[in-house]
Amino acid sequence: MSASPGFGDRVARAVEVRASQVVLGLDPDPARIGDGADRAIAFCERVIDLAGPACVAVKPQLAWFERLGAAGWDALERVSSHAADCGLLVIADAKRGDVDVTGRAYAQALVRSPFDAVTLNPMLGGDAVAPFLDAARATGRGLFVLVRTSNPGARDLQDLVLEDGAPWHEAVARLVATWGAGGVGADGISDVGAVVGATAPQHLARLRSLMPDQLFLIPGVGAQGGRPEDLGPAFAGNRAGALVAASRSILYADDPRTAAEQLRSAVWAVSGG
Amino acid sequence: MSASPGFGDRVARAVEVRASQVVLGLDPDPARIGDGADRAIAFCERVIDLAGPACVAVKPQLAWFERLGAAGWDALERVSSHAADCGLLVIADAKRGDVDVTGRAYAQALVRSPFDAVTLNPMLGGDAVAPFLDAARATGRGLFVLVRTSNPGARDLQDLVLEDGAPWHEAVARLVATWGAGGVGADGISDVGAVVGATAPQHLARLRSLMPDQLFLIPGVGAQGGRPEDLGPAFAGNRAGALVAASRSILYADDPRTAAEQLRSAVWAVSGG
Repeated sequence: MSASPGFGDRVARAVEVRASQVVLGLDPDPARIGDGADRAIAFCERVIDLAGPACVAVKPQLAWFERLGAAGWDALERVSSHAADCGLLVIADAKRGDVDVTGRAYAQALVRSPFDAVTLNPMLGGDAVAPFLDAARATGRGLFVLVRTSNPGARDLQDLVLEDGAPWHEAVARLVATWGAGGVGADGISDVGAVVGATAPQHLARLRSLMPDQLFLIPGVGAQGGRPEDLGPAFAGNRAGALVAASRSILYADDPRTAAEQLRSAVWAVSGG
Repeated sequence: MSASPGFGDRVARAVEVRASQVVLGLDPDPARIGDGADRAIAFCERVIDLAGPACVAVKPQLAWFERLGAAGWDALERVSSHAADCGLLVIADAKRGDVDVTGRAYAQALVRSPFDAVTLNPMLGGDAVAPFLDAARATGRGLFVLVRTSNPGARDLQDLVLEDGAPWHEAVARLVATWGAGGVGADGISDVGAVVGATAPQHLARLRSLMPDQLFLIPGVGAQGGRPEDLGPAFAGNRAGALVAASRSILYADDPRTAAEQLRSAVWAVSGG
C-alpha cells in the first residue's frame, strides 16, 4: 500500500469535485496559431484559462511540442505545470512503447511531475508496459493503454479477427485488465486505463464488459466525428468510468469556454446511467 | 521522381562503401555512464569515434535522451550530427505512431536532418503512417516499421493467430510491403523497411518472402541473445537487405572498436548468400 491515494481514486475525486469528465487535448498546431514555442505556450495557457474550469484534465499531445525541439520540451513542462496549478490532471499523450530496458528510460521521462498519467502503445507486450506500471504505481500515477483508437486506420490491424473469432483489440483489452488488476482503488477504478475511440461506439459495451475496472480515455469526439450521446455504455453508470477528450473542437472554437461547457454538459448527461 | 536518390539506394551505397551492415545503437544509460546530458554526449561521441568505422549507421534510442528533458533533446541533435559528420546514417529509434494530424507533427519532429530514417509503430494503421511516408519520400529519407520485435513480450500480441492461421505480425508485414511499394529504388530496396528481431530467427525466412523489397532492421543481437549466424535468411543473398543493430554489447564492451569489428565480420560473412 502506498501512502498516497492511487490514480483511480484521484480521478474519481477529481470528476466529483469538478463535475466534469472532459479532457482538454492540447495540440498547438502552427498552421492555426503560428510557429514557435512562445506561441504554443501563450495559446495553450489561454485555452486552459478559458476552457479549463469546465474540464477535469488536460492532455498535451507530445508530438506538437517535440516538433519544436528543446524549446518545445520546455514549453510542454510549462504548459503542463500551468494546468496542474489550475487544478487539472495532466495526461501526457505520448503513446510510447519499447523493450523493457528502454521502457525504463521512457518511464523516467514521462512518469513524473507535472504529469499524472501517460498513454502507452501495447504492441510490444507486457514486458514493455511493466517499467511504466512500476513507476506509476509507486507514485499514484496512471497509464492509459491504446486498445481501439479513433482513426480510420484503426481497422487495418486492431480489428483483424483472431482464430477464436474476436478482434485483436479485444485481446489487448484482456491484457489491459490483467495489467491493471493490482491497482484497483477504493472507488473500483484501476490505475491502468484504456484508450477507446468515440468513433466506433459499437465497441464500447463489449470493451466495458472485458475491462470492468478500467478508466476509459475516449478521444475522437468533435472534429473526428464521435458524439457524446453515444458514450453511455462506456460509463455503465459510473460517472468516473470514462474521460472524454476533445482537442480541435475546443482549441479552435470561436469561444473555447462555451465549447468546453457544452461538451461537459453533454457528457455529464449520459454518464449517470 | 525526386532529384536526390531514395533511401533504399542510399543504404545500398553506404553498405557497399563501408563494407558493413552494423548499426550502433546509442542508449546512454545513466546507471552505466553517470547522469546528465554532457555525459551522454561525451559517451556517445567517444563510442562513435571508436566503433563507428566498423558501422554503417547509428540508432539513437530517443527514450535515453528524452529522460534528460530539453537538454537531452539538444544532446540528441549533437550526437546525431557527430555521427553524420563521421559518414554514418542516423536512424531515430522513436517507435512513434499516432493519428494522422498528430502524425504530421511527429513527422516534422523526426523526418528531418540530422536523421536519415525513423522507426514507427504500425498499430494505428495506414493513415498514421501516411504523413511519415509523405515526408520521408519527399526528402530521400526512410522508415522502419515494427513488424516482430525482439523482446519476450512480443509474443503477447504480435504472435496471436488470426482466423486465416497466420500470426498477426504477418498481417503487419503485408501492410508494410504495400506501404513501401511506391518507393523501391534502383537497387531493389524500398524506403519503407521493417524491424524484425534477431531473437526469433525462425520468422526471418517467412517475413523475407512476405516483404521481398524491404530493408530489415534487426535488433536483438548480443545482449538480448540473437546470433549473427542465424540471420542469413534476412539477407537472401543481398548484402544490403538487412541492417543489424547492437547497443549494449558494443557500448559497454571493454573495447568497443573490437566488439563492433567482430560483429561487422560475423554479419558480413552470413550476408553474401
